[in-house]
Amino acid sequence: MISVTIVGRGNVGTHLWKALQNAEGIKVTHIDSRHLEAIEKSDVAIIAVSDDAIGEVSSQVNNDFVVHTSGSVSMNGLTNTGNKGVFYPLQTFTKDNEIDFTNIPFCLESDDPMGLDILESLVKVLNGNIFHVNSDQRKRLHVAAVFVNNFTNHMYVIAHEICSQYNIPFDILEPLIIETCKKIKSISPLDAQTGPAKRNDEETIQNHLNLLNQSQQEIYIKLTESIQTYGKKL
Amino acid sequence: MISVTIVGRGNVGTHLWKALQNAEGIKVTHIDSRHLEAIEKSDVAIIAVSDDAIGEVSSQVNNDFVVHTSGSVSMNGLTNTGNKGVFYPLQTFTKDNEIDFTNIPFCLESDDPMGLDILESLVKVLNGNIFHVNSDQRKRLHVAAVFVNNFTNHMYVIAHEICSQYNIPFDILEPLIIETCKKIKSISPLDAQTGPAKRNDEETIQNHLNLLNQSQQEIYIKLTESIQTYGKKL
Repeated sequence: MISVTIVGRGNVGTHLWKALQNAEGIKVTHIDSRHLEAIEKSDVAIIAVSDDAIGEVSSQVNNDFVVHTSGSVSMNGLTNTGNKGVFYPLQTFTKDNEIDFTNIPFCLESDDPMGLDILESLVKVLNGNIFHVNSDQRKRLHVAAVFVNNFTNHMYVIAHEICSQYNIPFDILEPLIIETCKKIKSISPLDAQTGPAKRNDEETIQNHLNLLNQSQQEIYIKLTESIQTYGKKL
Repeated sequence: MISVTIVGRGNVGTHLWKALQNAEGIKVTHIDSRHLEAIEKSDVAIIAVSDDAIGEVSSQVNNDFVVHTSGSVSMNGLTNTGNKGVFYPLQTFTKDNEIDFTNIPFCLESDDPMGLDILESLVKVLNGNIFHVNSDQRKRLHVAAVFVNNFTNHMYVIAHEICSQYNIPFDILEPLIIETCKKIKSISPLDAQTGPAKRNDEETIQNHLNLLNQSQQEIYIKLTESIQTYGKKL
């Protein structure tokens, strides 16, 4: 039996709690970060609070092993006196959506081998995938995640705006969006690159620029230049 | 029986030919754009050549109904003397990959109602989805497609580079990439936007910038500004 305390009622804390509460071999307690006074000790306290609260909250948790769930805070951002660790699920969470942790990568780190064993056991219970990632790598990974998640979604936002302006249903782009992301399973992104920037098709690039507003143009130009630069590196 | 001539042995021409050659009710001929002399007339000649060759090739095709497959050339870029049309499958094609046209959106346009009927029949045979899109809308759609396909893929390229530099397997980002694109099925991209730019988390933004090279920084800054501008419009 592994006893787990989850601190924090945000997206990550709530989803983890839901997933662990009926899991075999796990005893889980879910508490608010404002009520840390009388927690029973557990095998691991998982602090799932906003990045800037991790230091403060971890100093108040009286447990031998404390971990956080953040992609961008180093393990030593924890200020508890016992052992430390990181339990970072690399996925985008929305509170309403049901999240299945199956195959979700968990980036694990600990200053204690036994602590790492506990974290690995939790990932196995959740059917997630175990990755050992140190704090330095994790920070980089978090930036990479911004590109593939936040910035990619912003590409969808701009496309959605272009479609709205000309009464084109955004749905029409859905199969292309799905195919674009599925391609990464079979070929590297650099090999998958296509389009006017990649083939230096200046006429199409100019035609596209003429159809965009200033803010869209600036992004189009910047990304086109970048694609062309990467193309030359090959 | 619909008779179809496909001109051009590039990705689109080849995939269309493969998909149509065993289809019931279709008689398809596939020819090279350099051998246009002695083609038998058919119900529709589909010119699947590069954008800048469409004018020249269409002038040489002796058929009553000629269409092209391009997203960015207007219907009147065709220079045949008979009826004209557009048969634009909105998808990314790689020659080696098998392409299933099921549910692929086809953007159709014609100056002839009977021509449009023929194009609709072909889409039904391919199990695709019919959209009526005029030349002006199609040009905009093509730009939108550059954002969701070419530029999104470039986000993957940058993330891949960041991972490679720090010995992080790119695979670790795959579930996040898939989830990001699947979200568009249930919520609008603007509602799906998350991340440090969206929540004006200047500290994380600065930390991220410190980890990037100059070219990556410029893109990060430009996209962060754009996300913040869209956020204010809400």
